Amino acid sequence: MDLLNKTLNGIKPLDPGAMEKARERQFKLTKPPGSLGRLEELSITIAGIQRNPLPSLEKKAIFTFAGDHHVVFEENIASAPMEITAQQVLNFVSGGGAVNALANHCGARLVIVDMGVATPYDRPSIVKDKRVGNGAANISRGPAMTREDAIMALEGGISSVLEELENGLDIIGVGEMGIGNTTPASAIYSLYTGLDPAEVTGPGAGIDEETIKRKVEVIRRAIDINNPRRDDAIDVLSKIGGFEIGGMAGAMIGAASKGIPVVVDGFISTAAALLAEQLNSDISGYLILSHHSAERGYGHAAGFMKQKPLLDLGLRLGEGTGAALGISLCDAAVRALKEIRTFDQAGVTDVTEL
Amino acid sequence: MDLLNKTLNGIKPLDPGAMEKARERQFKLTKPPGSLGRLEELSITIAGIQRNPLPSLEKKAIFTFAGDHHVVFEENIASAPMEITAQQVLNFVSGGGAVNALANHCGARLVIVDMGVATPYDRPSIVKDKRVGNGAANISRGPAMTREDAIMALEGGISSVLEELENGLDIIGVGEMGIGNTTPASAIYSLYTGLDPAEVTGPGAGIDEETIKRKVEVIRRAIDINNPRRDDAIDVLSKIGGFEIGGMAGAMIGAASKGIPVVVDGFISTAAALLAEQLNSDISGYLILSHHSAERGYGHAAGFMKQKPLLDLGLRLGEGTGAALGISLCDAAVRALKEIRTFDQAGVTDVTEL
Repeated sequence: MDLLNKTLNGIKPLDPGAMEKARERQFKLTKPPGSLGRLEELSITIAGIQRNPLPSLEKKAIFTFAGDHHVVFEENIASAPMEITAQQVLNFVSGGGAVNALANHCGARLVIVDMGVATPYDRPSIVKDKRVGNGAANISRGPAMTREDAIMALEGGISSVLEELENGLDIIGVGEMGIGNTTPASAIYSLYTGLDPAEVTGPGAGIDEETIKRKVEVIRRAIDINNPRRDDAIDVLSKIGGFEIGGMAGAMIGAASKGIPVVVDGFISTAAALLAEQLNSDISGYLILSHHSAERGYGHAAGFMKQKPLLDLGLRLGEGTGAALGISLCDAAVRALKEIRTFDQAGVTDVTEL
Repeated sequence: MDLLNKTLNGIKPLDPGAMEKARERQFKLTKPPGSLGRLEELSITIAGIQRNPLPSLEKKAIFTFAGDHHVVFEENIASAPMEITAQQVLNFVSGGGAVNALANHCGARLVIVDMGVATPYDRPSIVKDKRVGNGAANISRGPAMTREDAIMALEGGISSVLEELENGLDIIGVGEMGIGNTTPASAIYSLYTGLDPAEVTGPGAGIDEETIKRKVEVIRRAIDINNPRRDDAIDVLSKIGGFEIGGMAGAMIGAASKGIPVVVDGFISTAAALLAEQLNSDISGYLILSHHSAERGYGHAAGFMKQKPLLDLGLRLGEGTGAALGISLCDAAVRALKEIRTFDQAGVTDVTEL
């Protein structure tokens, strides 16, 4: 709890001075003012986050938090066997996952964190061990975890980021691996947006409409039975969350406390973003939504956060894949801010001064 | 004319065999089938274009075609002085333009082609000389150029691409620089979509609503006076086009004839795409629209092409900047296709076979 509170207290609002200087520079670059649209806004946001008018994105990392969820197996609404979570962690370690390909694409290293994979596997030392338990408990019959475990999950996410500082960290992406984790994510969406679970629950990795209906009922039961308190994010995480969701929220908190932009992946990581914002509202400035997940209900969460994701490519994979594409756009935005010459430098007529 | 006809005749439909193999591979990769959304489709399209189930995107180039337009100065609807076209060409040569920053971002080299810059400047040898004239003539008083010049512009674009083959060319982006070239672009949009010029004419780099109204009238007059024949793209280019628009259309034709994917930049390059598609309908398969330009009317042209651009970030800069972001997404798509391991390779359970 000390680490969590200390980290939350370390989060400052974005630096308006750095943002103003970045904005002024955008207007002096050899292009029509505003013509790079959201890339310009993004560069200004990143300047504010890093408290630097000319921010650096040299060192990039994608954090993939893994955990399991007994609810989907006990209630028979899973799209895939639980063992796949562990198998995919090993696939990521050996470089063969989708997130590896896209992390390579955006020049990020991959940091894999085991928050609570249930299937036993031979965990390579490169996988961070922040395990809180053997999978989150069945949320339709009781809480996912104790309040102490929820704090441990958040602090596992925080320390994962803090440990990586020594390897350099200018921007992070946050994603997850966990069969069944759209179920707690949808429960969190429903709780915060106030929408019925049916409006924010979809097929996840692939279940039929009949199973989706049962999934909705499971989520409804989870909220009813646990009665999580909206104004206490730790309570929400412990009642209807999951270990990797706590890890992701913690990573967002940790990064924000160090002035590091956080690119949020997709459906499940956005549930973590909802929790993180509740813990400290200043966090919202540090969060960049990467893409509009194809999973039903995503738009409601983005709307609740008053954000519009950068991309809309029909992705619904998770792992940090969308975050990788978002990091690439951040890189483009910062390059534009830094590398385009000013009218003066380039000897190009500044129309705004004619 | 020989080069144009020969190149047009060399364009084949995409290779269905390579596409089918790429599609099959996508379903064997360690991710839920279809979960990479449009990136999966994009990888399959590129496989079909390159006629290779595992396409390569090692060698990337962005072609920026430059040209001037007397219409906007003679009719007093320009957003900026004509000299900026030449100044920006020199800015690109020295690496200081927006397109340089974003070409660096996506790992593409920049190929600058002078199609008809009107302001005299000391042209560095690195700028390809495919000049057709000193800027396109005032289209509101007569044709932009002769039919022979239109063919010369198209062939200049084709040869620009063919010359670059020896440096390696796995994908190209196509963009432009030319003060005033939203005017001919809007005229071409209006002609092909059948919409009134007012619906496809916006502020370009920045003119007020009053000037936009006059711009609309200039475009209306250009179409009325010249009466371009919709079914003859060379006629359209010569009557209401421009040299760099012809160069871009030619580059698309040249690339398609060599099995090279073409990422189309924004508003003006999409006008060139409309022309290229009219010259050979098989070209459409080779064209990837990068982003939804913020310029009024863009969506109508994309709709006419039955395509949805990859990005929508409010860009309205041109030069090839949006194409650079599109190339980056193509890179991500192809990496995913090639680098993600199959279920067999990774020892991950294939749920579709359970």
